[in-house]
This record gives sequence, C-alpha cells and structure tokens, in this order.
Amino acid sequence: MTVGIGLAGLGRIGRVHARNLRGGCGEARLACVYDANTAAAQAVAAEFEVPWVATYAELLDRCDAVAIATPTATHAPLTIEAAAAGTPVFCEKPLSQDRDAALAAVEACDVAGVALQIGFHRRFDPDWVAAAQRIHAGELGQVQLFRTSLRDMDPPNPEFLAHSGGFFADVTVHDFDMARWLAGEVVEVSAHGISADPEFAAVGELDTAVVVLRFASGALGVVDNARAAGYGYECSTEVMGTLATARIDAPRGPEWRTPGQVAHGTPRDFAQRFPLAYAEELDAFARCVRDGTEPLVTGRDAVAAFDLAAAAAESQRTGRPVAVEPAGVGAG
Amino acid sequence: MTVGIGLAGLGRIGRVHARNLRGGCGEARLACVYDANTAAAQAVAAEFEVPWVATYAELLDRCDAVAIATPTATHAPLTIEAAAAGTPVFCEKPLSQDRDAALAAVEACDVAGVALQIGFHRRFDPDWVAAAQRIHAGELGQVQLFRTSLRDMDPPNPEFLAHSGGFFADVTVHDFDMARWLAGEVVEVSAHGISADPEFAAVGELDTAVVVLRFASGALGVVDNARAAGYGYECSTEVMGTLATARIDAPRGPEWRTPGQVAHGTPRDFAQRFPLAYAEELDAFARCVRDGTEPLVTGRDAVAAFDLAAAAAESQRTGRPVAVEPAGVGAG
Amino acid sequence: MTVGIGLAGLGRIGRVHARNLRGGCGEARLACVYDANTAAAQAVAAEFEVPWVATYAELLDRCDAVAIATPTATHAPLTIEAAAAGTPVFCEKPLSQDRDAALAAVEACDVAGVALQIGFHRRFDPDWVAAAQRIHAGELGQVQLFRTSLRDMDPPNPEFLAHSGGFFADVTVHDFDMARWLAGEVVEVSAHGISADPEFAAVGELDTAVVVLRFASGALGVVDNARAAGYGYECSTEVMGTLATARIDAPRGPEWRTPGQVAHGTPRDFAQRFPLAYAEELDAFARCVRDGTEPLVTGRDAVAAFDLAAAAAESQRTGRPVAVEPAGVGAG
Amino acid sequence: MTVGIGLAGLGRIGRVHARNLRGGCGEARLACVYDANTAAAQAVAAEFEVPWVATYAELLDRCDAVAIATPTATHAPLTIEAAAAGTPVFCEKPLSQDRDAALAAVEACDVAGVALQIGFHRRFDPDWVAAAQRIHAGELGQVQLFRTSLRDMDPPNPEFLAHSGGFFADVTVHDFDMARWLAGEVVEVSAHGISADPEFAAVGELDTAVVVLRFASGALGVVDNARAAGYGYECSTEVMGTLATARIDAPRGPEWRTPGQVAHGTPRDFAQRFPLAYAEELDAFARCVRDGTEPLVTGRDAVAAFDLAAAAAESQRTGRPVAVEPAGVGAG
Repeated sequence: MTVGIGLAGLGRIGRVHARNLRGGCGEARLACVYDANTAAAQAVAAEFEVPWVATYAELLDRCDAVAIATPTATHAPLTIEAAAAGTPVFCEKPLSQDRDAALAAVEACDVAGVALQIGFHRRFDPDWVAAAQRIHAGELGQVQLFRTSLRDMDPPNPEFLAHSGGFFADVTVHDFDMARWLAGEVVEVSAHGISADPEFAAVGELDTAVVVLRFASGALGVVDNARAAGYGYECSTEVMGTLATARIDAPRGPEWRTPGQVAHGTPRDFAQRFPLAYAEELDAFARCVRDGTEPLVTGRDAVAAFDLAAAAAESQRTGRPVAVEPAGVGAG
Repeated sequence: MTVGIGLAGLGRIGRVHARNLRGGCGEARLACVYDANTAAAQAVAAEFEVPWVATYAELLDRCDAVAIATPTATHAPLTIEAAAAGTPVFCEKPLSQDRDAALAAVEACDVAGVALQIGFHRRFDPDWVAAAQRIHAGELGQVQLFRTSLRDMDPPNPEFLAHSGGFFADVTVHDFDMARWLAGEVVEVSAHGISADPEFAAVGELDTAVVVLRFASGALGVVDNARAAGYGYECSTEVMGTLATARIDAPRGPEWRTPGQVAHGTPRDFAQRFPLAYAEELDAFARCVRDGTEPLVTGRDAVAAFDLAAAAAESQRTGRPVAVEPAGVGAG
Repeated sequence: MTVGIGLAGLGRIGRVHARNLRGGCGEARLACVYDANTAAAQAVAAEFEVPWVATYAELLDRCDAVAIATPTATHAPLTIEAAAAGTPVFCEKPLSQDRDAALAAVEACDVAGVALQIGFHRRFDPDWVAAAQRIHAGELGQVQLFRTSLRDMDPPNPEFLAHSGGFFADVTVHDFDMARWLAGEVVEVSAHGISADPEFAAVGELDTAVVVLRFASGALGVVDNARAAGYGYECSTEVMGTLATARIDAPRGPEWRTPGQVAHGTPRDFAQRFPLAYAEELDAFARCVRDGTEPLVTGRDAVAAFDLAAAAAESQRTGRPVAVEPAGVGAG
Repeated sequence: MTVGIGLAGLGRIGRVHARNLRGGCGEARLACVYDANTAAAQAVAAEFEVPWVATYAELLDRCDAVAIATPTATHAPLTIEAAAAGTPVFCEKPLSQDRDAALAAVEACDVAGVALQIGFHRRFDPDWVAAAQRIHAGELGQVQLFRTSLRDMDPPNPEFLAHSGGFFADVTVHDFDMARWLAGEVVEVSAHGISADPEFAAVGELDTAVVVLRFASGALGVVDNARAAGYGYECSTEVMGTLATARIDAPRGPEWRTPGQVAHGTPRDFAQRFPLAYAEELDAFARCVRDGTEPLVTGRDAVAAFDLAAAAAESQRTGRPVAVEPAGVGAG
C-alpha cells in the first residue's frame, strides 16, 4: 500500500515534492495539497490531478501523513497540529529558528507517538547512503578527519537573506547533520566567515565560511561553505580513516572535447545535484509511516544541527571555539 | 492527465516497467497487468495495487496504451492486435526475429494510425539525450568517427542463447540504433566475431565482436561488444567530429581509497547503468500518446536496426563487407 | 658509466633526443652530433655544448652507440654502416619503407652482434610499462579484446604525406607494435579507411581508419586512428581479459571551473602526451648497450609491425581480411 | 652553459637531487659532492661519476652554485658561508628553526648579492605552475577561498619527530608558501590539531590539523594536513574565485577493472607525486644563477612561511586566532 501524503506549502521545494510524489516515489503518493494561497493550491491540484483543500485541518483529514514545505515560521506550529491529529510529519528544515519552539515540536511528536522526519535530503542520496553504510560498518577504521564542501552557485536575493536565520543555520546546518551522521557527535565548533561580496558586507551577512569541528571521538572536521561559488553547486564529502578514506563528488555527464580542452557539465543547483534524493526521502518516510519505524533523521537531529549552527554563529562572533553539549538535545 | 498503461508480460523487464510506472514515471501510470501466467499477473497486481486481467483483449480494453514485454515470438502478433484495437504500442525489442513479421506489425500500426515505440532505452538516458541534442544541433561539425562499446558483465545462460536471435540481433542491435541516431544511415557493415569462451564455441555462438560501419555521410564507425566483460556492464559512446568530440561514459560513485589505490564501483547490469532511462522511455511514450506525436524511436527504426544486424551476421559468416540499403525499410 | 650517444639527424625528433640526452636521461648522454646539414649540426652542438662532426663515420668513431633520427630512406643504410663498425643502434621507425632493406639492416646487426632498438616510444611510457608488467604477469586472465586509439590533433602537411609510407605504415604501425606487445602475435588484419577531409581525398590518402585484428591466441583487436581528431592528440589503450581489464588514458592536468562547466587540458601532440617516454627509451637502450642485453623492441619487432601495416594496406585495398604469417619475420 | 652544482648533504633528499642533476635537469649539472660522512660522499661520487670533497669549503671552490641538503641545524651557517664565498645557494627548507638565524642567512645573501632559493618544490610542479600563471593573470577574478590538503601516507618515525621543528613548521609550512603564492599575504592564522594516533599523543605531537587563514585581500583559506592519511600521499589545492575556480589533484595512472570495481594507483610519497618538480626547481635555480635573476622562492618567502608556522603553533596552543604581520619579514 502506498502512503498518501498531504502536501502543505507549494513554493519551490513544495513543487519538487509534488513532482516526485507523482513520478519518482514508489511508496508515497500525492493525496492532497494545501497552501495558504488558495490559487496556488488549485493550480497544483489541477496539474497533478489531486484534490486541494482550503485549510490545513482538512489536509490532515485527507492524508496518511503530511509533508510540510511552508514558510519556516509555520513549521513548528503545523508540526504540533499534525501531532495532535496523530498524523506523521515530514518537515523541511529548519524545524524552527527558535530552539524552544523546535524542541516543543519534537516533544509533541514524541508524546503523540507520531514519526517526525526532517528534510535533510543528503541522507537519502544513493552515493551518501552507500558511503554511510560502509562507514558505519567500520570499513574506514578510526575516523581521523571529516571534510565537506557545500556551496551554492549564485547568491540568494536580499529578501531571502533577511529571513534565512543566518549563514550557519541556513547553509552549514546540512553539513552539521552530515558530520554527525558520518563521524558522530561534535563537541566543539570554531567558525570563520567573511563577506567577500560587498552586497553581503553591506547587510552584515556572511557569504563564505570555514567551520572546524572537534568530534567526541577525538577526530577533526572541516566544512567550507559559500553562497556564490560561481562555477556551480558543490556538495562533496570526504571521510578519512585509518584503514580507508571515502570521497563523494558530483557525477560527471558527457564529455565535450574541443581543441586542447576536455569539458563536462557541473550541477547548477540542488535539484541537478540530487536527482534522486528528494524522491527517496519521501519514500523512506512512507516506509516509516507504514512500518511504524523511526525515521533516519529525526527532530532531535534537527535540534542537534540547530545547536551546532548556533555554536558556529557564536564562535564567528567571538573569535573563539565554542563547546557543544551533545547531551543537550531534548534537555529543554 | 497521466496515460494509463496496460502492461503485458511480467518477466524481468516487465517488472522493471511495473516498478517505474508506479514510482519513476510522471506521465504514465500502471493501469492494468496481464501475463499468460495468471499467477504471475495476480502477484504483480497485488504488489502494485492495480487490476489484472486474464486475456490480452481485456488488457487492451482497460488501458490508454499498451506496453509489450512478453516473449519475443509474441511481439508482432500482440502489436498487430493492439493496432486493430486502436491502442498505441510500446514494444520491447526485437519487434520480431522475422523481418516480414516485423514489417507487418509496423504497417498495421501505420494503417491504424497508432503510435509504435520500440524499447531502445538508451535514446532516453539523460546523458545520451544531452549529447544527441548538441550533435543534432551541429556542434561536432562533420562527424568523422563513431565509436561505441556495449558489454555485459556475465554471460547469459545457454537456454537464453538458443532463443536470442543471434549475437548481432540481440546485442549489437542497440548500437546499430545508436549509430543511426547519432551519425545517420549506415550503408556498409563488416563484422568480426569470436567465441572466446569454450562454452560459447561449443554451441556455435559468438561472445565477442567488433563491427565496422560506413555511414552514408562517409564517416566511419566501430562497435565492440562482449557477452562477458567480467568487470561490469559497459555502455559508452564517442562521436568524433571536425569541431568537437562527445564522449559518454558510466558515472562514478563514491571513491574508496585504500593503501596505494583509489577505487569506485562500476555498473553490473543495465538496470544499474540506466537508472532513469526505462522510466523516461515510458514517459516519452505517454507524451506521444497524449499529444498525438510520433515516437522518437519507431517500428521503422527497429526494422532498420534489424537489417543492420542481419548484414552483420552475413558479414561475419562470409568475411566480407555487406552493403545495406537504407531505403529498404518499409519496402517489404 | 653513462653511455655516450652519437646523434645522427637533428630535425624535430632529433632535437627531442638531444634535449633528453642533456636533461632527462640518467644512463645515456649526448656525446656528439651529426647532420647532413652542417649548419644544423653546428647549431645544435653549440646549444648543447657537445662536439659535432661532418660525417657519419666520424660520429661512429666518437660514440658508444648511435641514435639515428635522419630521413627514413637513410635509416637502413646508416644502421648497416653502424653494424659494420660494431656500434649499437637506436633507430627511429620505420627501419625502412622497403621490407627487404629493413630485414637486411636487422640481419646486419645480428651478424655483427650489435643491439638494434627501434623508436617505438610507447613501450617506455611509465603507464604502459606498468600495465604491460601486470598483463604479462597474467593478471588479466585470458585476453579477449584489445582496443586502442591513436589520433593526431592536426593533419600533417601535404609534403609530409608524400613520403609518409602510407597511413598504416606511418600511423597504425605504433598500434601494431602495441598489439603484439600486449596481446601477442596477430594472424589476420582487416582494415577500413576513409578520407574524411577533401584535401586527403584529393591526394588519395586516408585520414581515418579502423583496423580489426585477430590474434594467434584467438582474441579480437580493434584499432582506430585519425590524422586530425581536432580536439587533441589521443593515445589510449584497453586490454580486456577474463579476470580484469586494463585501461590507459591521458593524464589530466589542473581543472578549471567556470559557470556550469569543468574543464581541463588535453595533450596536443606526442611530446605533451609522452613527457617521459623519449628519455626513457634512450636510457633503456643505454642499459642494453652497457649490459649486453637485448632491447625491449628490436628490429624484428619493426619488421613484424611493418608486415601488419602492409597487410592492412592490402586489406583496405581489397575489402578482405588478410592473413599474416607471424613466422615470416626474418624469413626474407 | 649548464651550471655546475656542488651538492652538500647526501641523505634521502640529497640523493634525489643527485639523480636529477645527472638525468632530469637540463640547465644544472652535478659538479661535485660533499657530506660530513666521507664514505657517503665517496659512494655517491662513484655512482654518479663526479668528484667528491672532504670539506664544504672545497665544495664551494668547485662549483658555480651550491645545493644544501644537510641536516636542518647546518642550513643557515652553510648558507652564510656560501654567501661569504660569493656562491649562490639553493637550500632545503627550513632555512632554520630559529627565526633570527634564518634572517641572518637571508641578509648574508642579500649583502653578498648572491641568489638564495628555498626548496619549496611545489612551486615548480608543472600543474601548479600552469595554475599559478592563470591565477596571477587574473582569470579567477577575486579569490574568495583557498583550500589545500597535504597528507603523508605513513607516519615518520619518532626520532625524526624529535627534530622536526613541530607539525606546522614541518608539514604546513609548504601550504603556507602555497597560500602566499596563490592568494597573497596572510594576516591571521587559526590552527586546530589533534593526535589521532596514541603514539603521537604519547610524545605530545600532533598528527592531524586544520588551519584557517585570513588573507590581506579579505579571502578565507583552509589547510588540512595529516601525518598518516593511510591511503597515500595527498597534495591537492583549490582556489575559488568569482570568475573561475582552479583545482589541482593527483594524476591517475592506468585503470584496473575487476568485477564491479574500477581502480587506479595513487602516489605513496612526494617522489611519486612530484616526478618533475625536484629537477625543475634546480633548473630554475640554475637559470637564476646564469642570468642573475631573482629566484621564484626566496629566503624571505622562507621566513614568511616560518612566521605563519609559528603563528599556527601559537594559535593551536592558545585556542585563539593569531594575527600575523606580513611586513615583519626582514624587520628582524
């Protein structure tokens, strides 16, 4: 039985989910759509041949589980409302820009006994999944160094920046989740950022950063991020261990050879870089809903990544390493 | 509106189609299944939550278009039956091992005015699509050399070989279609084959071959094929032109570094090599059905590739180049 | 003790040898230079700080061994003269465009008991050396398929073509030597060539060819060659065996990433593609001279490759496979 | 005229230089050798067919320029002695583990007007040279991020560590030189190190480190280093700019394909990674000597890199970013 997903929020990522739920997902299907903008809901409903509803409450009535892709400020309240209705939740990151609100949402799902999965899509990319399996099986030996790069091709527009929650919470948060998944809990964060672009400097926003991590295991980690790499969307990861080292880089398409040069394309955005991960995260969520298992990436993971982002922001501000309490998650 | 596909034949490739029609295709959906083996039909119907029918005629009644993945000998008759019912047809290759039967099927679809698309999946792989667009746009200048390799990892079992239609019709036929698509009509074929494996030699079957092509344009082409490359499934293509040269090779997954060595996985079969092409060919077919446009790869393409395979078999037998009449398609 | 090389012929490849003998070779040194053009000899002598001589006889007097890089027609006579003087010979290919003359040179060296090494540089490239060692050690299992590409970037000028000895003797001969080295003796050759460039067609010269080989072992081989690949100088080889497959491709230099594209340079000529092989072939020759061992690539190898080139030319002319007698070498 | 090099110090790197001066260098030649261990000098002299001398003073008498590859503590005094004799100096890094001693050596060469080149070999590797030319020509636009990895395959032995001068001065110093060369002066250093290997922890030595740099230009930089990467010797660099991004990685040799896997070798040490740079740095030095030009990498560069290493050590100790005065070089 496929799981019927009610999709709330039909902006850019919401439409990615809609497309995947129609063609891409094998376990989840698009059951119903909702958006605060009724016209948008009607348009998507017509395109994807599914019902639309005018309220979130109706959406919860008409689905097996809900996927929340609405504006950030509504993530936590909608999650709590779904939990109250007994409906499992897939929620885009961040759960909230407020730690207490995020924790409240996590606890609401816990109390209600419903699954809560966060939209850290990279955990579902086939390359990372394959690498993680071998890493978790111990093939690397003792991990010594974790290194990852996440860079956007083009900078976001200024309006977006005003609501982004800050560089580390918006960009690095994905790498914090990767770090924890692949190398374990982080106990110290040192962040260094610049505003290479004068427009970013003018609004007091970072656009390029390096974050150094110390893991509970004693390993070292390093993350680099940029808002505008220029050449493309970069997402690559390396984990160096005593027995082996794993590296994941972008796939390369067809080669074009012209005089003296060999060239191939490189992804321009997350959709090109991750053609399969967004469908797979919803299928994995559907399996959890159907089988009653725990999601691979939970609300507690979201809070842990949030805490690392907050520590990075503090470190960047103070110029000092900031210690992090892994045990803090869930402690309120 | 998605197009409802009736799927006939639920063996290995039939089940690949079923899975894609549930999750993978955005324009086509699985409407109903049929197999001469009723138990197989029931099992697939249950797994994929669709109706099953006991006869092919009922299948045609319950779908917008039919996908035929039954044993080869039934391809042409089932195509003709669908044409008579006015139902568009997607048919696995080969249309028939008998040229006249294949032509009769093509003509039946022509007369009935229904679309007929052949399962040459490589035409729908994103890398080949991207390369073909640029090649057809003239970016290579004059094509001088076409080169392609298609190799299976492990040899098929002997029972399969008895019904394969011969090496060139079973294996090289895909490359003949590529050659025609990317470099135009072929006017001469020279084929050279060996039986490297004594088991193949014992049953008089080739397992490794090189086929040299001359194109109507004056360009030269070369194909190499193997039943058992050992290391993996190889499918790669190069087109060398006066202005540029295009190359398509297998994508590379995560890298594993161990002392003194860097390694990554390589595809083991067509399903690993072409994760997207099988879904896309059905979506493209669905668009043709919905919009009334001609398929990218038609029954006439199947007959043309068939003729090249027959010429290759003759060349291999006689040790001489064999001329091919491109105009022969459809001439009966 | 380094071996003092007398260098005869100071054209393009002669000057490559001069440079390597000064900086690049560790076992061979430039002892003296000679060219029929005295001014050229004087200029090179001044640049490389070595003596020059006005006659070939004087050159033989002043060296431990001679390297012949003069025009093709003089290769065999100069080899025979060196043999008569008891001087070991390194000679650029071809030994002669006349089979009997080549054989006479080989036999003169045999009779005199002096080493004769032919300038098939690829046998000394580190990548091919590494691959050959493992292939010869049996790591591939039974070789099933040999595949190689040799393509120049830009076409030679017409005057060169008039004295090239023909496409197969000038270009493919390197691949014939590779084929014999890596996969054993060849027993049948089928050649297919075109003149894609109208200027080549006008003078009756091929510019693109595919040659299919059958080996004594039963394996199949395929060579493709072009006078003008356009994008660069291509030299790559694959040997597919039952246990493993080896591939050698051009190294890739630094990567340049610009919007949506990743690019790197590709070699434009043999000097860029083989930065080490030309020095190494002279060092290997010097070791043979010093130690009295047989060169890796002898005059008999040159004749064998010559015979394959002649067979290819005949096959291309007649449109039929041509059988080759491996035992023919030395039989006169 | 080639430049005769007197080689002082015949340990591991000294012998690399000897070999290159015999075969590899085209502008420099090995004129004479010296080692405090007379037997070692005699052995190398015999092997390379050059004179040996028993004292450094005699060596200076018998060469156009001197290459110093002796133990670190003697670098500065031998440089000063050469300067006093008017002999140009190529000196292995570090010039000294004492900043004042290093500066004194630099000043002695300045006063004497003799060239002083430091053995930062990577500045002479063809890939880095090619990248640097394009970077310095402005092709990257504004540099935003500099990233580099330098990792040894196997850890050094404990005796070496005792005299290494510390992790940052021994390992990272090469990357500091790269950073300055490719992205300009560094104004702040933040270093983070661990002792992943208990043997390193036991002697209080780091084995893995990440160093974050802020450049005078405003750009950010990140270096990662390891004493024991396990899989091989890693040396790769990336410079990300607003217009383009350059990346340099290790070349890849022949590919070996076995069931489901594609593998190639990776360098195991600096000699494998840099087959050409050690010869080229001596040739470049010879050209400076002959032409009276300034070396590409001077004693002041050595002091600047030394200062960055000292700042890194301080940062690692204090847990704080350390500011660096680029103007400090030469100020005593």
